[in-house]
Amino acid sequence: MADIPAKAEIGVTTGPIRGSKKIHVPATGHPEVKVAMREIYLEPSSGEAPVRVYDTSGPYTDSNAQIDIMAGLPALRREWIVGRGDVEEYQGRALQPEDNGQLGPDRSGGVRPFPHVVQRPLRAKAGANVSQMHYARKGIITPEMIYVAERENLGRARLAEYVRDGESFGASIPDYVTPEFVRDEIARGRAIIPNNINHPESEPMAIGRNFLVKINANIGNSAVASDVANEVDKMVWSIRWGADTVMDLSTGRNIHDTREWIIRNSPVPIGTVPIYQALEKVGGIAEELTWEIFRDTLIEQAEQGVDYFTIHAGVRLPYVPLAAKRVTGIVSRGGSIMAKWCLAHHKESFLYEHFDDITEIMKAYDIAYSLGDGLRPGSIADANDEAQFAELYTLGELTKRAWEQDVQVMIEGPGHVPMHKIKENMDKQLEACGEAPFYTLGPLTTDIAPGYDHITSGIGAAMIGWYGTAMLCYVTPKEHLGLPDRDDVKVGVVTYKLAAHAADLAKGHPAAKVRDDALSRARFEFRWRDQFNLSLDPDTAERYHDQTLPAEGAKTAHFCSMCGPKFCSMKISQEVREFAAKQNQPADAFIAASGNEQDAEAGMAAMSEQFKEKGSEVYIPAAE
Amino acid sequence: MADIPAKAEIGVTTGPIRGSKKIHVPATGHPEVKVAMREIYLEPSSGEAPVRVYDTSGPYTDSNAQIDIMAGLPALRREWIVGRGDVEEYQGRALQPEDNGQLGPDRSGGVRPFPHVVQRPLRAKAGANVSQMHYARKGIITPEMIYVAERENLGRARLAEYVRDGESFGASIPDYVTPEFVRDEIARGRAIIPNNINHPESEPMAIGRNFLVKINANIGNSAVASDVANEVDKMVWSIRWGADTVMDLSTGRNIHDTREWIIRNSPVPIGTVPIYQALEKVGGIAEELTWEIFRDTLIEQAEQGVDYFTIHAGVRLPYVPLAAKRVTGIVSRGGSIMAKWCLAHHKESFLYEHFDDITEIMKAYDIAYSLGDGLRPGSIADANDEAQFAELYTLGELTKRAWEQDVQVMIEGPGHVPMHKIKENMDKQLEACGEAPFYTLGPLTTDIAPGYDHITSGIGAAMIGWYGTAMLCYVTPKEHLGLPDRDDVKVGVVTYKLAAHAADLAKGHPAAKVRDDALSRARFEFRWRDQFNLSLDPDTAERYHDQTLPAEGAKTAHFCSMCGPKFCSMKISQEVREFAAKQNQPADAFIAASGNEQDAEAGMAAMSEQFKEKGSEVYIPAAE
Repeated sequence: MADIPAKAEIGVTTGPIRGSKKIHVPATGHPEVKVAMREIYLEPSSGEAPVRVYDTSGPYTDSNAQIDIMAGLPALRREWIVGRGDVEEYQGRALQPEDNGQLGPDRSGGVRPFPHVVQRPLRAKAGANVSQMHYARKGIITPEMIYVAERENLGRARLAEYVRDGESFGASIPDYVTPEFVRDEIARGRAIIPNNINHPESEPMAIGRNFLVKINANIGNSAVASDVANEVDKMVWSIRWGADTVMDLSTGRNIHDTREWIIRNSPVPIGTVPIYQALEKVGGIAEELTWEIFRDTLIEQAEQGVDYFTIHAGVRLPYVPLAAKRVTGIVSRGGSIMAKWCLAHHKESFLYEHFDDITEIMKAYDIAYSLGDGLRPGSIADANDEAQFAELYTLGELTKRAWEQDVQVMIEGPGHVPMHKIKENMDKQLEACGEAPFYTLGPLTTDIAPGYDHITSGIGAAMIGWYGTAMLCYVTPKEHLGLPDRDDVKVGVVTYKLAAHAADLAKGHPAAKVRDDALSRARFEFRWRDQFNLSLDPDTAERYHDQTLPAEGAKTAHFCSMCGPKFCSMKISQEVREFAAKQNQPADAFIAASGNEQDAEAGMAAMSEQFKEKGSEVYIPAAE
Repeated sequence: MADIPAKAEIGVTTGPIRGSKKIHVPATGHPEVKVAMREIYLEPSSGEAPVRVYDTSGPYTDSNAQIDIMAGLPALRREWIVGRGDVEEYQGRALQPEDNGQLGPDRSGGVRPFPHVVQRPLRAKAGANVSQMHYARKGIITPEMIYVAERENLGRARLAEYVRDGESFGASIPDYVTPEFVRDEIARGRAIIPNNINHPESEPMAIGRNFLVKINANIGNSAVASDVANEVDKMVWSIRWGADTVMDLSTGRNIHDTREWIIRNSPVPIGTVPIYQALEKVGGIAEELTWEIFRDTLIEQAEQGVDYFTIHAGVRLPYVPLAAKRVTGIVSRGGSIMAKWCLAHHKESFLYEHFDDITEIMKAYDIAYSLGDGLRPGSIADANDEAQFAELYTLGELTKRAWEQDVQVMIEGPGHVPMHKIKENMDKQLEACGEAPFYTLGPLTTDIAPGYDHITSGIGAAMIGWYGTAMLCYVTPKEHLGLPDRDDVKVGVVTYKLAAHAADLAKGHPAAKVRDDALSRARFEFRWRDQFNLSLDPDTAERYHDQTLPAEGAKTAHFCSMCGPKFCSMKISQEVREFAAKQNQPADAFIAASGNEQDAEAGMAAMSEQFKEKGSEVYIPAAE
């Protein structure tokens, strides 16, 4: 396995995404809070303002930023956290060999530890609760909420006027997001801001039905493959293309050190599944897991700065046999580990039994729950079955228990679901879990396309995002087959980004259509570079274009390779528009004139002459 | 440009799709009709019968077939057509230089003509009507209908029992498809079998809401790129992966000869847009198009054997100004040509005016209408607008006019539509067009992902297929950017195949789930080869698997590279299942036992012991 190199030349991708620039916008009314965004510049001929888009890429795309993987990112939120006066530094838990899975002699070659590990992490002072939900419920608007509000608006205030158009299935998307709106959503549990006080490097973001639909990318090494440098690179790569959060699903050796490198360099929230590491600590034998080992692992990861924990506390003993009847049993790793534990001891899950104890830890660091769906269906055959919904209702019960301590919660969802059963998942989740944000994996809408499961699941993701899911966990083309490489990560992220955006459009997000319209105008006016730059993946768009028409001149041509100049509908259509404009007649007059065939005969001949005179074959430049 | 080579070594892909075999199943009650299908064989350890799947690949995947591109395919339907006694051979129209776009000296290098052009094509005898709709309405069940019925069943009769599960939005999918059902659907206009009597090489297939959802692949050269050998190869390649019909959208030179090569070697229906060729004949000047030139082109293509024509007869003069207000105007090539013609002459479209004359031609060859949506939206901004729906209602009017002459009709649909506006398209189409099959291009659900428009549109395609669209026209990753190459064609076809299948599942097609379930069982039992072979693209699935775990042993491993052996949820889940089975207790008893915590304490300890005794860590082979 490759180590993190001693020098800072770790291979992460930096620099602006083409055609755009990182900007930092002072939040309205709070200029001290500077919100990262990206502006895409259009050709001067367009006469259009730059298009401002949501940006997850952190300092890596900022030409002015100094990137040093060995040092980690700046602690953006440190002052906000400390400034609230409710946290204390303390001597953190000492690193154990088993934290890195080294139960015996280390044959892995090891991982170089991150050079600047924080020795004294933060936690809430005794009796304090540092969760955003706690502040929200006390009526406090935090800088995190201010940041989120500005970030979500996408320049909404600059839109002169727009017609709301969408179907949001009962969501309450505001015309304009204020910090107070964010606070209220957090207080009600309808949104979360996952940001551990020990991950001050993260840029605040919200996950909730009334905000932009978010996406998560999974990375992480396994016992079979991967190394740390690759995982850090994948993290940076995934946020470049739009991952809003990243889950580190590493198993095997060196989990602790791998995670440290990832968190210290991540501007997005990091999620984990702590049971994976706990299992490593007991040599992979599920039955030997104990609450004490699990608790210790939570503290370990809390101190490192993990922002949300997947906890499979809904896999209760009585539900396990329900899954035995299934075509694909239990497909969640965490779920199957807990099922095995429950069966072996024939006892109720220690996660369920100690749920309130876990919540105590969460609130001391502001870690959000991602209540795991350990019994999610792993095939079309098992979708929406008794096991799945039994667990969902338990997750609803746990949500309320977490909220009693003001701890933020989101709920994980499936999985594999045919289209006609997707909405039921959303409806039941809203009902069972009191509108806590839903966070689904796909769902895959068919099982017959391994190699294309980013697409089978992208379909389900777009739909469930439309119905109200707040965050979509990506699926890569390698799903069910192997570990995603860098290319797979990008394809997965872009696929989910487009699914999330399709959902925003359909929900009627006031600003979502701005980018579609800008790109469509660019397309119609043959501004090829604008079309590339406005797309989710400018590099691929331009590469595909150049495969057929590589010449530089083709980038300004008023046609393309699909139809050639003669058949270009856009070009003909522009001529039609010009003609209609020159007629200086409203469309209805035109229709009326044409409606009466007999009277209109003479008029038609005249108008026909006009069209020819006005240059039916004269090339009219688009930007004229 | 490359020519068709003189020898038969044109590079089409032949041979079985891995793990499967082409079979020819005698139709129930009509053993003389042999229906092409594909059977996927599973590992003996599965104890499962082969899975029979719909197959569009024609003789190219048949190990017993002799493929000779220079000779074309056997005339499968010739005897059926001639046997009805209502057709006559006649001296076909003579080939003109302008048919190949040679208005001046030929500088294209030309295309070698197909060596066995039929000199005396077939047409209906005077006064006869050879359309399948005509037979259907007379109560005649044709061999084509028998073929389709058997083909659609996918072994449904062999399913011992199944529970119908789906939401079909008012479709009437039968438990079992009989030839009489097919006849009735054709008679009512709810389905079509596009099969020109001059394309006897085609294997009959149906397009209709109560049949499996079909997909179309577009191929064709343009003035800018492509050559004939490539196009024939793309046709064969696209049907290998599942294209149910292929549209030849060639423009530029050599259209006629290119089409001849494609039709003679195609076992699937071929569609065209005749206005493209007509425009070539007038040097690309839309205003110079005439009904006579268009009519002559229809006859030319009818004699070659084109199975369905896209006719943009709904682009009426009064609608043109409605499109002028749009963000992207008119994006249909045919639509924009007709709009320009209408404006230039200020006259009603000659396609609309001569619609009944066109229908006369259609019925003499049994060509189906694909009524073109020349005013489909080209962007999210223009979706479901006045221009689009004005045209749709005109298409409904034309449908009824075509049906008056018993000519088969399908209706083309959009395009670019955000998710919340998709269903309105389907509902309006059903209402306006009397349930004639809908045939949509995607729709794309966002405009911001050029390079990924197979996915943005695959989302919309799956949804509209679920709502009732009968055929989905594929979109490749090159959409809006360039001409698809072979790889793009495959990605487009597989994407649309999975979208169509997701739609079949959601509609509740009785046999669709068979393949999902077989693959899911294979996945759960670690039958890796079965998992690959049951997928839509076995080659890609295996290649992806091997990128992480290339060793041959990994193909039989009871874990995979994602989690490794310790974390394998499937493996743990199998242990859970074995344990539950050995308990020999129904799930409810188990739940009851666990429900009462106090009483159950002792029992739990006992059951725990049992689990350990029975080998909680003993590896239990899946197939035991």
